Amino acid sequence: MEPFSQQFEQRSREGTGDRAAEHTPPRFDADFLARLYDLLRWRRDVRRFKRDRLPDGAIERLIGIACLSPSVGLSEPWRFVLVEEPKRRAAIRANFEACNKEALEMQDPDRAALYARLKLAGLDDAPVQIAVFSDRGTAQGSGLGRLTMPETLDYSVVTAVHTLWLAARAEGLGLGWVSILDPARMAGILDVPQDWIFIGLLCVGYPQKEDDTPALERAGWEHRHAPEGVVIRR
Amino acid sequence: MEPFSQQFEQRSREGTGDRAAEHTPPRFDADFLARLYDLLRWRRDVRRFKRDRLPDGAIERLIGIACLSPSVGLSEPWRFVLVEEPKRRAAIRANFEACNKEALEMQDPDRAALYARLKLAGLDDAPVQIAVFSDRGTAQGSGLGRLTMPETLDYSVVTAVHTLWLAARAEGLGLGWVSILDPARMAGILDVPQDWIFIGLLCVGYPQKEDDTPALERAGWEHRHAPEGVVIRR
Repeated sequence: MEPFSQQFEQRSREGTGDRAAEHTPPRFDADFLARLYDLLRWRRDVRRFKRDRLPDGAIERLIGIACLSPSVGLSEPWRFVLVEEPKRRAAIRANFEACNKEALEMQDPDRAALYARLKLAGLDDAPVQIAVFSDRGTAQGSGLGRLTMPETLDYSVVTAVHTLWLAARAEGLGLGWVSILDPARMAGILDVPQDWIFIGLLCVGYPQKEDDTPALERAGWEHRHAPEGVVIRR
Repeated sequence: MEPFSQQFEQRSREGTGDRAAEHTPPRFDADFLARLYDLLRWRRDVRRFKRDRLPDGAIERLIGIACLSPSVGLSEPWRFVLVEEPKRRAAIRANFEACNKEALEMQDPDRAALYARLKLAGLDDAPVQIAVFSDRGTAQGSGLGRLTMPETLDYSVVTAVHTLWLAARAEGLGLGWVSILDPARMAGILDVPQDWIFIGLLCVGYPQKEDDTPALERAGWEHRHAPEGVVIRR
């Protein structure tokens, strides 16, 4: 039984209705490209959620899609912990509050006031919380591609988070990545193996609003820069 | 002058032809979702490239799209080094060969033969090579979200690589991520600031073939596992 995969396969064939076409390379036309780039422009780090629950099985299906992401040596080191127990959610919230207080104290006074006004987490409202880990101890992939750069395991997990983010947005959901946490404490709070590296906490739910401008830009915290500035030639 | 951004904006409006609709949240229908999931299913880590050159400006435009990716605190720490000089390409190739030899020796004898047959890099044929770095020293974002997890800067860069990967595939290009390299040597080979962290080397070009199954799975190195195995509840 592979319910996630089956659901995904069923979904991915919608619109073609043709099983024989399954292994025919798709062509992506200009209209698809325009929509794909709209998706990238409208993907936001969501902090304000409605409290509505997701349909049963929705998050598991999205995780199944995220598992199509690239991984070093086909190691698939992503581990998704659905955080449901109130006591664990409370411990994560306390972890966030302690780290957020410290971060606030590190800011210049003139920016501290702005920082304090930013709502940095959707921990209270998002119906789904997923703690994502990288299994540094996995044997899958037999070490291919990661001998000199073991951190590529973590990078593989990040691509899965990004896939989940894009798929969620495309389906009308919002995702917020919370990183103001002490990563060393997360494995203990969630009782997972000690060789799992904490990558991030994801809040998922229906967004209160949609926007094509990052919340931090709207709030005046930072603005995006022109891409030419990040390209050099050698 | 923001040529990349302008090109992107122009592209992203194709299909709507309506400037007034620019800030209207897009709706993504079932047909788009099916195509998006096709894109995820057909994105491959490409190792065999045609030698054909890319159109002028194509890679810069794709990098501009990659810059729409999320970044911690809106820090945009991604740095793209287009590697063009033959002497630097040769130095990277030597770095790869030394690391690959060492990796081969680390494998079990029965897998070493298989490993040796895998063509692990597209370094010889791909017309474009991009070394991607994370600027750990950037002041942009004022440190927001990265006090306890400075590695989120690197994770931001990984999301940009993944965006570039998906956009390239959607436009008929292939991308291969090479990680069998000594990261400490890459900053020196490419003469970039020492506080830039090497994330990966990307080969980009037209793929020799398209496939919906990972090359490592086709070669019998590793297979993908069912997504249920990576989800736990707490």
